[in-house]
Amino acid sequence: MKAYQELSREELISVHEELLKEYDAWKEKDLTLNMARGKPSSAQLDLTNDIMTVLGHDDYYSEDGTDLRNYGILDGICEAKKLMGDVMDAKPSQTIVFGNSSLKIMFDTVSRAYTFGILGSTPWCKLDQVKFLCPVPGYDRHFGITAQFGIEMIPIPMDENGPDMDLVEEYVNNDEAVKGIWCVPKYSNPTGIVYSEETVKRFAALKPAAKDFRIYWDNAYALHHLYPDIDVDIPNILEECEKAGNPDMVYQFASTSKITFPGAGIAAMSASEANIEEVKYRLSWQTIGYDKINELRHVRYFKNVEGLSTHLKKHADIMRPKFEATLELLDKELSDLKIARWTRPLGGYFISFDAMEGCAKKIVAKCKEAGVTMTEAGATFPYGLDPKDSNIRIAPTFPPLNEIVTAVSLFITCVKLVSVEKLLEE
Amino acid sequence: MKAYQELSREELISVHEELLKEYDAWKEKDLTLNMARGKPSSAQLDLTNDIMTVLGHDDYYSEDGTDLRNYGILDGICEAKKLMGDVMDAKPSQTIVFGNSSLKIMFDTVSRAYTFGILGSTPWCKLDQVKFLCPVPGYDRHFGITAQFGIEMIPIPMDENGPDMDLVEEYVNNDEAVKGIWCVPKYSNPTGIVYSEETVKRFAALKPAAKDFRIYWDNAYALHHLYPDIDVDIPNILEECEKAGNPDMVYQFASTSKITFPGAGIAAMSASEANIEEVKYRLSWQTIGYDKINELRHVRYFKNVEGLSTHLKKHADIMRPKFEATLELLDKELSDLKIARWTRPLGGYFISFDAMEGCAKKIVAKCKEAGVTMTEAGATFPYGLDPKDSNIRIAPTFPPLNEIVTAVSLFITCVKLVSVEKLLEE
Repeated sequence: MKAYQELSREELISVHEELLKEYDAWKEKDLTLNMARGKPSSAQLDLTNDIMTVLGHDDYYSEDGTDLRNYGILDGICEAKKLMGDVMDAKPSQTIVFGNSSLKIMFDTVSRAYTFGILGSTPWCKLDQVKFLCPVPGYDRHFGITAQFGIEMIPIPMDENGPDMDLVEEYVNNDEAVKGIWCVPKYSNPTGIVYSEETVKRFAALKPAAKDFRIYWDNAYALHHLYPDIDVDIPNILEECEKAGNPDMVYQFASTSKITFPGAGIAAMSASEANIEEVKYRLSWQTIGYDKINELRHVRYFKNVEGLSTHLKKHADIMRPKFEATLELLDKELSDLKIARWTRPLGGYFISFDAMEGCAKKIVAKCKEAGVTMTEAGATFPYGLDPKDSNIRIAPTFPPLNEIVTAVSLFITCVKLVSVEKLLEE
Repeated sequence: MKAYQELSREELISVHEELLKEYDAWKEKDLTLNMARGKPSSAQLDLTNDIMTVLGHDDYYSEDGTDLRNYGILDGICEAKKLMGDVMDAKPSQTIVFGNSSLKIMFDTVSRAYTFGILGSTPWCKLDQVKFLCPVPGYDRHFGITAQFGIEMIPIPMDENGPDMDLVEEYVNNDEAVKGIWCVPKYSNPTGIVYSEETVKRFAALKPAAKDFRIYWDNAYALHHLYPDIDVDIPNILEECEKAGNPDMVYQFASTSKITFPGAGIAAMSASEANIEEVKYRLSWQTIGYDKINELRHVRYFKNVEGLSTHLKKHADIMRPKFEATLELLDKELSDLKIARWTRPLGGYFISFDAMEGCAKKIVAKCKEAGVTMTEAGATFPYGLDPKDSNIRIAPTFPPLNEIVTAVSLFITCVKLVSVEKLLEE
């Protein structure tokens, strides 16, 4: 196949006609497929079904003898703090276990800063301007949180090592209004990028102009390897920050949402003891405690972080063929055409796809029209505004493999069609 | 026994000597008992143990066929909205089911108003002054929430029909800074008072100066009767507000914390459709959903609101003897002395005790010194300030009956001792 850019106008017109026919054939199939969200498949969920019965009706004591059925224990049972701390490379004393959603923890963390400030700093609601750095493409729900609080979001380009650290340093070290940065350091959403050692160390060595600047380190995919045998590790951000003299500069988040059941898992936060003390103080006015029985359920089921890793290997066995089938189709159908590029993640839930400029919205609309829902184009950028209208997040996890193949094939037709139309317009 | 006020100084001195001996004898017993919090006892928790195994490992579909193990369903599964709606006399469309803690819902509701405003009104963080009415004695954790947000709290006296409604009307209808009132309408914490029909109707008929005034109707003990055969019912606040032309004026809260397991229950909110829509919109930025598996667990276990009521009768059978033993001791030992009065609740978790003015703190301290922890004196008032230093909350639920008898007996000794000392000082 020749690259589309190299085709003559006549050739393009003829390709366009063929693609229109192909697209119409797709539409006649009356598909209803959804590739929009990073959801585990039913087969993945089936792996965990036994967790529902792991607690016998008389199994409700923690290892320190506390009756976990009653009120109390604000910050998580000791076993769960160990388990979730190990996920994040944090000590139990640096860890709080919450309810079911790390997104909610992140929202609440921003909300606390907005209302109460951080370790004595002015609450953000009393400031004229608060800014967050947003590596792009990134996670739409992160940007949704900062948008709700009226926080100005500044896009930071990413490369294969993580965010552009020159730019991050320039903003963080000079602008006191910059109070945070959203990070998914491992298998980043949606690129799958793993931050390099240098990137992590440069993060830890930041010299923030704002005392209440924090790195919001969403380690959502800490253990979510597609290729468990490939060593993908990043330095411990808590330790690095401490070594660099910035012990309080990071809040780290994780959850079991994509390990057990989304919605019925447990989520956790880790940070310096000073940060954790403050969060616990604020929490003490909000709740008497989270669901300790569900914490115990997770501990009984997995025992320890190795148990989680073993379990996730089974997830990987289900997900890997879907990622590989998607990449194979993209490679085969699009590599030669020079109209797009995409990432090859070793973990996480997404592939990031960049179409020709100005094409993403049209591609997603074409998919939708033919029955395949993709993540909204632009969603991976603050305010939903992708300046190049180029990035599309592919989530090849939820549908079964055969449906993934169908959906990606249709997607490819749409990419080609919209690209040719763009070239014809030029 | 003669009333202490009628005793001569000599008689008082002699009574004092006896009481000191009695108190010293208590101290020698080295007690460690806790009557501080409204916690269910282990025997109550045992009633629900089977809920842990009620969901088989393949029981995870809602009645509409949704796989509840995966992401989605922000506002609660349909069966749980029906169940918790019925607890609050609300339609499912007026109901959101959340996670485990109604306190957290209330905190978040205040937090949303502070940050985002209510239905288009100015966010409270942008106002110079926000006030809440606080019926007293009341629930310390309510006051804790408003205190955290810097909201000025105005105490409102209660009588056997509920808050002083003349005062409530005067504040709410004339002062635009008054944005809310904390209410526990049924078996009020700590008095056990049930709001009268007239009180509820006067609430519904308020004409608030502030458009964003809301009644924070914490129906924590809706079904928590100590005497299930005695008909204790109050008008449906949602309906009454609607009838009075104030459909949006109330947020109602409830939970299963004191029905199943505190911490591992489900909590809910009900309000007008307009309020619910707004809350759901805000929630949509915070979380993808709450623990739907735990919602299903509750639905399977109880089936419907009648199931909850039947279950609570078993709770009542355990709690009633503790309340009755406490009241019997108070009656026997203190009635004639005219140094205190107390409530006789038909439900809920507390007895409210009023000592002579200036005695509450000393009584609680004396109890503590002898090994019995009571709720901090003052806790039932905003800012922890009981102007008369008179009110003490008795929570006769957590310890077993024999320990309750011991703790209350010691408490009575302390009440007598501190009262006599006060009279001797006069």
